[in-house]
Amino acid sequence: MTSASPLRVALAGLGTVGAGVIRVIDTNRELIARRAGRPIEIVAVSARDRAKDRGVDISRFDWIDDPAELAALDGADVVVELIGGSDGPALALARRSLGAGKGLVTANKAMMAHHGLELAQAAETAGVALKFEAAVAGGIPVIKGLREGAAANVIGRVYGILNGTCNFILSKMESEGRGFAEVLEEAQRLGYAEADPSFDIDGVDAAHKLSILASIAFGAQPAFGDVAITGIRNVIAADIAEAAALGYRVRLVGMAESGSGGLFQRVHPHLVPLAHPLAHVLGSLNAVVAEGNFVGRLFFQGAGAGDGPTASAVVADLIDIARGEYGPPYAMPAASLAAEPPAATGDRRGRAYLRFTVADKVGVLAEIAAAMRDAGVSIESLMQRGAMADGTVLVAIVTHEGPERAIAQALEKLRGSQSLNGEPMWMHILDS
Amino acid sequence: MTSASPLRVALAGLGTVGAGVIRVIDTNRELIARRAGRPIEIVAVSARDRAKDRGVDISRFDWIDDPAELAALDGADVVVELIGGSDGPALALARRSLGAGKGLVTANKAMMAHHGLELAQAAETAGVALKFEAAVAGGIPVIKGLREGAAANVIGRVYGILNGTCNFILSKMESEGRGFAEVLEEAQRLGYAEADPSFDIDGVDAAHKLSILASIAFGAQPAFGDVAITGIRNVIAADIAEAAALGYRVRLVGMAESGSGGLFQRVHPHLVPLAHPLAHVLGSLNAVVAEGNFVGRLFFQGAGAGDGPTASAVVADLIDIARGEYGPPYAMPAASLAAEPPAATGDRRGRAYLRFTVADKVGVLAEIAAAMRDAGVSIESLMQRGAMADGTVLVAIVTHEGPERAIAQALEKLRGSQSLNGEPMWMHILDS
Repeated sequence: MTSASPLRVALAGLGTVGAGVIRVIDTNRELIARRAGRPIEIVAVSARDRAKDRGVDISRFDWIDDPAELAALDGADVVVELIGGSDGPALALARRSLGAGKGLVTANKAMMAHHGLELAQAAETAGVALKFEAAVAGGIPVIKGLREGAAANVIGRVYGILNGTCNFILSKMESEGRGFAEVLEEAQRLGYAEADPSFDIDGVDAAHKLSILASIAFGAQPAFGDVAITGIRNVIAADIAEAAALGYRVRLVGMAESGSGGLFQRVHPHLVPLAHPLAHVLGSLNAVVAEGNFVGRLFFQGAGAGDGPTASAVVADLIDIARGEYGPPYAMPAASLAAEPPAATGDRRGRAYLRFTVADKVGVLAEIAAAMRDAGVSIESLMQRGAMADGTVLVAIVTHEGPERAIAQALEKLRGSQSLNGEPMWMHILDS
Repeated sequence: MTSASPLRVALAGLGTVGAGVIRVIDTNRELIARRAGRPIEIVAVSARDRAKDRGVDISRFDWIDDPAELAALDGADVVVELIGGSDGPALALARRSLGAGKGLVTANKAMMAHHGLELAQAAETAGVALKFEAAVAGGIPVIKGLREGAAANVIGRVYGILNGTCNFILSKMESEGRGFAEVLEEAQRLGYAEADPSFDIDGVDAAHKLSILASIAFGAQPAFGDVAITGIRNVIAADIAEAAALGYRVRLVGMAESGSGGLFQRVHPHLVPLAHPLAHVLGSLNAVVAEGNFVGRLFFQGAGAGDGPTASAVVADLIDIARGEYGPPYAMPAASLAAEPPAATGDRRGRAYLRFTVADKVGVLAEIAAAMRDAGVSIESLMQRGAMADGTVLVAIVTHEGPERAIAQALEKLRGSQSLNGEPMWMHILDS
């Protein structure tokens, strides 16, 4: 097909994605060579267990016990890091590979969220590629969409559904009217959720991805530590039913916004109006919206996880490297990324959904309404729903547009009230 | 910001998009320079009327009367062609620019559909860029999404809503229950449709874009002449109401598929199920779906036209060129693109919507049903709707899945029937 010299790849980590990368390159070998201008060849692999059956033949590759040694491998141009984890062997390999002048492709969102800036500087110093399309939204080329496709625009906001596990659970809770715990268990059985699901359902995974997107969109240093994170653990079936009755779907939305007040980054359950494309992202899909000052609203959707889609993104990065089509990892030199302070959220204006689980007794509604009034929260609608199995009653409120500070104040006033059972649920309502 | 030498741009055509390109570069100058690694500067412009007020100051650029002379301009690295038209001055300028070793960026779908192969070869020979993101789906980076983002995949199908005028009309017909002619007139008044709307509403514009997408997706030579085209002129309000009652929305879908039988390319009104993301593409938006053998279904949505979005795509191409991140225009060398024969459609299987306008008399239904039976078309549902203003009756049929050949045969049997008024309407039903 082509006589150009191959791009030689050393692959660390042979879980489902690693095996997927081998499968993509095997299956689409000729096409990839045509598109890349030269063959892409895996030359060496490293993983914990050499003998494990992964459904792909790895005997043709050099086996290296210690992944860190891939960085020093003479016969490799690029290292693909699929070990995972923000630090440890993944980070050691990344540092050594870039330091040795090898390109690096990674799907490691935790590592990029925590150490992306350092790694980008190392890549730029060495004049090699650092690419991480697979770290955000799996197979969807959203890093490329922001870094290149929307490059002519000042991006005002970037937001989306960044965790397929949460979206699977929320979609299923809605379509089947079931509770969180029950659906989580099913998701675990089906392989949509991990045995320890906290990284997903508590929003940490989405926050990793959000901080990467924000960095590229706004030309800001990654600031994972500044992401305000709330997961979906406290979303109950009644919230979803209430939202549906109002014309909304509940989605875990990661949102980042850049403005004069600093960098706003939040992962939080939202009510998404049916007129918004994010409301129609079902099951384990991911989707990202970017709003540019000339292009308007761009919307990208696809599989956010899984071996095929994630491997597809890894190999797309390798193709870019084979073509020589890469530049600064964050679209601009890492040294020029701004260190933006986190934005205060009190002045943010919007509508909110608030749900209280309360004792079924006289005066509770008045107490809640008084707290809202005293804090200056204007109520659009208030619904009180019959007793739950445990005798408690739900009160769901939708507010008019107002500052978030007022809602925080109202909730503060109600803290410790004898009438309330458990924490109130506060979800933001996404504008359409 | 940067001391690197600027990318010097000569701009031909100062309509809304041309003025938009100037505005994008003026407004986002610093950011673009950071992302591109060097400034992007317009140095010369050419258009028909020097004096016309375009809302941007063009006095700072060299004015060149004859656009073709931009190709010979010593001080320019890249020519942006926004003249339009498949041949004539646009093509002359494109040929001369590439021949003179200048990169070319164009938003000209007609020229790329007709002459893309020749121009790509010229660009490759000269070793310069030929980029045309703005030619398909306006601001949506879908060329990049296919050429790079999905590059690791064998693409099975690429399809989408490629004409904003048609989608605006169909959306409005649905939401307001109005007829085609009336809504078209309003679209013209609002600037969503041209005074001569035939390129849009008859599907030619969508077909131009489809042939460009197909070429990149499948590594095939552009074959605009092989696109089977039907526009939306014959969609009536009752079709949209009938579709809605069945759980579908009517959309003009351009679809391309590559298989052993050759290259299938068709622009045709479709019934899109509400579960499909294309059903939720409203108004003048565009959207593209690409299905890859590893990534699964990718979905891109955004503004398909307008000066801001289109200019955003033009400048994104310029940024890629400034970065040196470009390669063969069709992702692989033009000489290696396959000349694929058009696929026969008879064997294509699917469900269909058929609508007949018939005389209100006994026996008509039986005649239609007999034609279906004789051709082997299996009917899933048949609805007969009360008399229209002119006394005719509508018969709407949804078929079970079957070969398109059978439906064509049934319609052939009915041709010339005294019972039928006008041509039957045949829409394909998109699988969800």
